[in-house]
Amino acid sequence: MAVYTQVSAEALSEFLARYDVGELVSAKGIAEGVENSNYLVETTRDRFILTLYEKRVDAGDLPYFMALLDHLADKGLPVPPAIKDRAGIEIQQLEGRPACLIRFLPGVSLSHPTPAQARASAAAMGAMHVALADFALERANTMGIDTWGALLARCGRDMDVIQPGLFDRVASALAAVERDWPAQLPTSAIHADLFPDNVLMLGDRVTGLIDFYFACTDVRAYDLAVMHGSWLFDARGESADAAIGAALIEGYASVAPLSREERAGLPVLARGACIRFLLSRAWDWIHTPPDALVVRKDPLAYLRRLDWYEANPDIFQ
Amino acid sequence: MAVYTQVSAEALSEFLARYDVGELVSAKGIAEGVENSNYLVETTRDRFILTLYEKRVDAGDLPYFMALLDHLADKGLPVPPAIKDRAGIEIQQLEGRPACLIRFLPGVSLSHPTPAQARASAAAMGAMHVALADFALERANTMGIDTWGALLARCGRDMDVIQPGLFDRVASALAAVERDWPAQLPTSAIHADLFPDNVLMLGDRVTGLIDFYFACTDVRAYDLAVMHGSWLFDARGESADAAIGAALIEGYASVAPLSREERAGLPVLARGACIRFLLSRAWDWIHTPPDALVVRKDPLAYLRRLDWYEANPDIFQ
Repeated sequence: MAVYTQVSAEALSEFLARYDVGELVSAKGIAEGVENSNYLVETTRDRFILTLYEKRVDAGDLPYFMALLDHLADKGLPVPPAIKDRAGIEIQQLEGRPACLIRFLPGVSLSHPTPAQARASAAAMGAMHVALADFALERANTMGIDTWGALLARCGRDMDVIQPGLFDRVASALAAVERDWPAQLPTSAIHADLFPDNVLMLGDRVTGLIDFYFACTDVRAYDLAVMHGSWLFDARGESADAAIGAALIEGYASVAPLSREERAGLPVLARGACIRFLLSRAWDWIHTPPDALVVRKDPLAYLRRLDWYEANPDIFQ
Repeated sequence: MAVYTQVSAEALSEFLARYDVGELVSAKGIAEGVENSNYLVETTRDRFILTLYEKRVDAGDLPYFMALLDHLADKGLPVPPAIKDRAGIEIQQLEGRPACLIRFLPGVSLSHPTPAQARASAAAMGAMHVALADFALERANTMGIDTWGALLARCGRDMDVIQPGLFDRVASALAAVERDWPAQLPTSAIHADLFPDNVLMLGDRVTGLIDFYFACTDVRAYDLAVMHGSWLFDARGESADAAIGAALIEGYASVAPLSREERAGLPVLARGACIRFLLSRAWDWIHTPPDALVVRKDPLAYLRRLDWYEANPDIFQ
């Protein structure tokens, strides 16, 4: 959420000269996305996002992400593909970092989406899954169920500093999720992080699905479960909005029908999604000094969601 | 250099409805300026900067800053005035902060300006001073020469942690500057912080003078001295570019003639400007933990400039 790598106007002008995009008019560092450096760049022709990839994105994964975005953009989905330079190259180097010049998309991320907006956003996820049925590349989910046990072990008893008993609570929930995980459900490339932040809208219309840097091959319905857990609740995870939940399922299924098995799998997938975000937030919490300027996201907001899904197993029926 | 106050898309849409500026299309938090929160906002009609004023800007000073910008914009200077809402109001409240919607200016800040760019920028400062001859409001310089002794005393011997002997070195330079300060030189409203960061350019043309939040009533030639010290040197203050220095003086004087007394006063004004930035950086250095995510600006870069001005008293002849 900061600009880690400074790009001088002079270096940026030279960089843009590789492309057929016009001359530099303005560049503002923007506070967005995962831990990359982003600039909103205006040229005499158009606007773009310039992203410099910092340590959290593995440069080796960029060809996968860019192929995925190209695939979706070719099918008319509202995603931000990288622009090709005059030699056809998407992934560049700038100030010692991998860098892409990316299509700018209009729209704003909503803090309090309405059911109509939730329906449209879940329908956009459904359309994305349909469009990805013939996407051939694969990428393992580096934050998938296979990794949660090891991450829990690495967090260890430091979890109990966040809340007494948290380690045991998560270990037991994880054992149940691992036991019941519906691994046989259909897989495809998924977004894996479609929080409200990552959907751009104008009114009730989806104008952008963004931030694909967790995209991977995994259970399709898990993508919907991640979305469900991030859209249904207030930020503290304390209250669930049933109308949003219904709109998400209905919106998704209107475009990408959910099988009986997928619907039956959603409760455990949703609990798994809670564990995934609880654990990554707990890890960051334990390893971020309280006085650091980055905002630590509260792991307990996902414990409350987990509690809720356990108490409401019939929510997806 | 961060976004301290989050503004939801919903709150921003409501805020924009007070103005006759069209509907919200996009909003990105930008990492710019002094310690305010800034958003680059696009509507169906135009682009704007939304600024929420955090603690470092005194809300009581905003009417002065806004009147100054209006005065300059009315005279055709490339500055970013606040937009008036339908009731004619410029200074609003948003998310509990004073907030202004500000005209967007094209252009980029240069890291390595050429002499032609330095000349154009100093000429823009000269034009600003000429345009401010009939600006009636006054504001004391909260970082002016009257405050340096007290700031030095507050930094105290902690200065010597930055470099042994620094306190005594600055105390003695300050005594000389106070003794020789040309307080009788013409005063007006000045920018007081016209670093390269605060000038937007397209090629050799100045498209914006920005970040007026240190503007105040003070010696006009001191404004040029601040600019000189910030443009002449590399960031570490280790090498001076004589061609830039000559271009600054020439550019300024081409629009706002410098009297013999002003030229004679520039060496001591320049040393004073070095002390001002050395002290504010030293204060921040002493009070910012080394592991904080904000970049601490090196006070010694201004000690080196002070050394240079002391060794080169004839540079302005």
